[in-house]
Amino acid sequence: MKTQVCIIGGGPSGLMLSQLLHLKGIDTVVLERQSREYVLGRIRAGVLEHGFAELMREAQCGERMDREGEIHDGFYIAHDGKLDRVDLKKYSGGSSVVVYGQTELTRDLYEARDRMGGKVIHNVEDVTLHDLKSDAPWVTYRDGDEIVRIDCDFVIGADGFHGVSRKSIPKDVLTEHEKVYPFGWLGVLSRTKPVNHELIYARHERGFALCSLRSQVLSRYYLQVPLTDRVEDWSDDAFWAELKKRLPEEVAAKLETGPSIEKSIAPLRSFVAEPMRYGNLFLAGDAAHIVPPTGARGLNSAASDIYYLYHGMMDHYLKGDDAGLDGYSAKALARVWKAQRFSWWMTTLLHTFPDSITYDQRLQDTDMDYLFSSERALGSLAENYVGLPF
Amino acid sequence: MKTQVCIIGGGPSGLMLSQLLHLKGIDTVVLERQSREYVLGRIRAGVLEHGFAELMREAQCGERMDREGEIHDGFYIAHDGKLDRVDLKKYSGGSSVVVYGQTELTRDLYEARDRMGGKVIHNVEDVTLHDLKSDAPWVTYRDGDEIVRIDCDFVIGADGFHGVSRKSIPKDVLTEHEKVYPFGWLGVLSRTKPVNHELIYARHERGFALCSLRSQVLSRYYLQVPLTDRVEDWSDDAFWAELKKRLPEEVAAKLETGPSIEKSIAPLRSFVAEPMRYGNLFLAGDAAHIVPPTGARGLNSAASDIYYLYHGMMDHYLKGDDAGLDGYSAKALARVWKAQRFSWWMTTLLHTFPDSITYDQRLQDTDMDYLFSSERALGSLAENYVGLPF
Repeated sequence: MKTQVCIIGGGPSGLMLSQLLHLKGIDTVVLERQSREYVLGRIRAGVLEHGFAELMREAQCGERMDREGEIHDGFYIAHDGKLDRVDLKKYSGGSSVVVYGQTELTRDLYEARDRMGGKVIHNVEDVTLHDLKSDAPWVTYRDGDEIVRIDCDFVIGADGFHGVSRKSIPKDVLTEHEKVYPFGWLGVLSRTKPVNHELIYARHERGFALCSLRSQVLSRYYLQVPLTDRVEDWSDDAFWAELKKRLPEEVAAKLETGPSIEKSIAPLRSFVAEPMRYGNLFLAGDAAHIVPPTGARGLNSAASDIYYLYHGMMDHYLKGDDAGLDGYSAKALARVWKAQRFSWWMTTLLHTFPDSITYDQRLQDTDMDYLFSSERALGSLAENYVGLPF
Repeated sequence: MKTQVCIIGGGPSGLMLSQLLHLKGIDTVVLERQSREYVLGRIRAGVLEHGFAELMREAQCGERMDREGEIHDGFYIAHDGKLDRVDLKKYSGGSSVVVYGQTELTRDLYEARDRMGGKVIHNVEDVTLHDLKSDAPWVTYRDGDEIVRIDCDFVIGADGFHGVSRKSIPKDVLTEHEKVYPFGWLGVLSRTKPVNHELIYARHERGFALCSLRSQVLSRYYLQVPLTDRVEDWSDDAFWAELKKRLPEEVAAKLETGPSIEKSIAPLRSFVAEPMRYGNLFLAGDAAHIVPPTGARGLNSAASDIYYLYHGMMDHYLKGDDAGLDGYSAKALARVWKAQRFSWWMTTLLHTFPDSITYDQRLQDTDMDYLFSSERALGSLAENYVGLPF
């Protein structure tokens, strides 16, 4: 098989890039290790920043998002028994975020790829990248007993943190920066009416909590838990009881509870691999960087990677200009690190850290006091939350 | 002896409060452990925020400051070989700082106290505070063989970190929060023309450096050094050579060097004691809180204490209203912690931390990148540097 751009990974990043390039007449093949059903069964975040939503529209996949997604002009931070609102629109100078589940968005991208006859190959095994430093890289995968070879100009590694792409870069070329946090998030999805029409991030001495949503009938709640906790330790009743304790009374009183339809614990991790290019392999999204979910950067910090790759590939194929691709790693990393900085800051602001000294606890209190006393501090939060410019 | 307000400590905080209260007809006595010559020989910071300068004027001590002090509308941050300016006036919405040595300011306050016949008693030994929880507290000190007793309504503890005032509060009443940093500042004062008309804070992989000044003929430079270094380890030549290495070439080339007239190493410490009131004792300034010098909060974070005490005492004596004094500790601490937060942030932004993980080093790089890419981040820095509202 032959293509121009071989994309490893059929999650939202890979599908969107495939779709965007297709619309510019650039041929792609997407390889996905899992089945489509599996990919669409994954529960992921749901807050899309302005720039990501714009990319969806440019990819001609924004129609349902614009119809069913909810525009959020702000969110709440609960602390010290109070509920303070961050007016994103006001403090960012007019931007908002769109709440639209990643599952829905991925479905829309698959449908667009189907509609246009895009090649998305599922259930591929033993994906291996070859001759990445050459002008003629190639990719193989196993389909049953058969080894299939794809020749291409470029390989995009959009196969997530555990994918093969980053691991194909020699260890002496790649630098990995990592920070782990001494807690995880226990998440519950339930078919209940969300307790609030906008997100509530709650700081509480018992630990952080988050009231999020996927739609007006699908709620997503999280609790900060020790890394030693297991899902089996948490009955639905225990979850709801603990959540109520961490919310202001006025919010807890309105909380609609119900059976969990998904329950899981995820550790929090900050991770960046540098550089994001190796020969003709370009990493994008989780394959190169992970943020803790506080601040909703996960999918959004992939958006700029896709944007830069999209423009770099267009310039290469349509103008013969490689400046975009040559500058990709530096440019993408500059924005990735800003998303890392913001996610770290939000995480630090809102969680309890078991071993922190009292001085640092007071600094954390003060960060919150300062935030809601300063339009400039709120402006800084808002511009990061809605997404810094690409 | 009898007075209304007995002030422990004849540094700028104590003298200024004494002067302000005197002008409102409230009687004070200031007790200072050292001689006047000793107090005026101490080398201290020189950046005064807007609100502090205003207090100097209200105390009728601002004339020389306004004549000889220099208004700084901005400062520079050197990093990655570049020199970026923080336009304080622009980003804070019109405020500036005044560069005027603390020694000069203290001299002006002493002269004002002399002029008005203020009681400032030097060389007092064995200062002891008595009956602080009663309506009739009293203070004793030893003058040669004689024990002198001062009866008063209130005691102000403005006697610095090592003073007796904070130590007079029972341990079970006071909570102390402390953070130490794994480095100190080696400072050199020299009669040389300052390398720049505004301050330069330099971040460098060899360690932080600061180019500061007291006047157009008196320069003050600092280097981050390990806590194990001693002043004797640093010849003047070694100091200037190291300083040049940490500055951008364009700055180093202009550096005028000369013999040091003072050289010392100070550890960096963040410290807050809570509450700031015990009975009729009120703590102010360094007696209750210390910041690392990065960000020039030292004297400035005492300014709001003095401001609140001044107004609280006026309300008590002139209006019979104790709300100001009753709210003093909470109000003063709220602003103190914001100065702590800012000083910690500036310190973290600019210093090298010997044991930091690479992830945190990159976060530090990113903090700098973000700062100079965002008007909102610059606005937040500026409003803190010129001083948050009282």
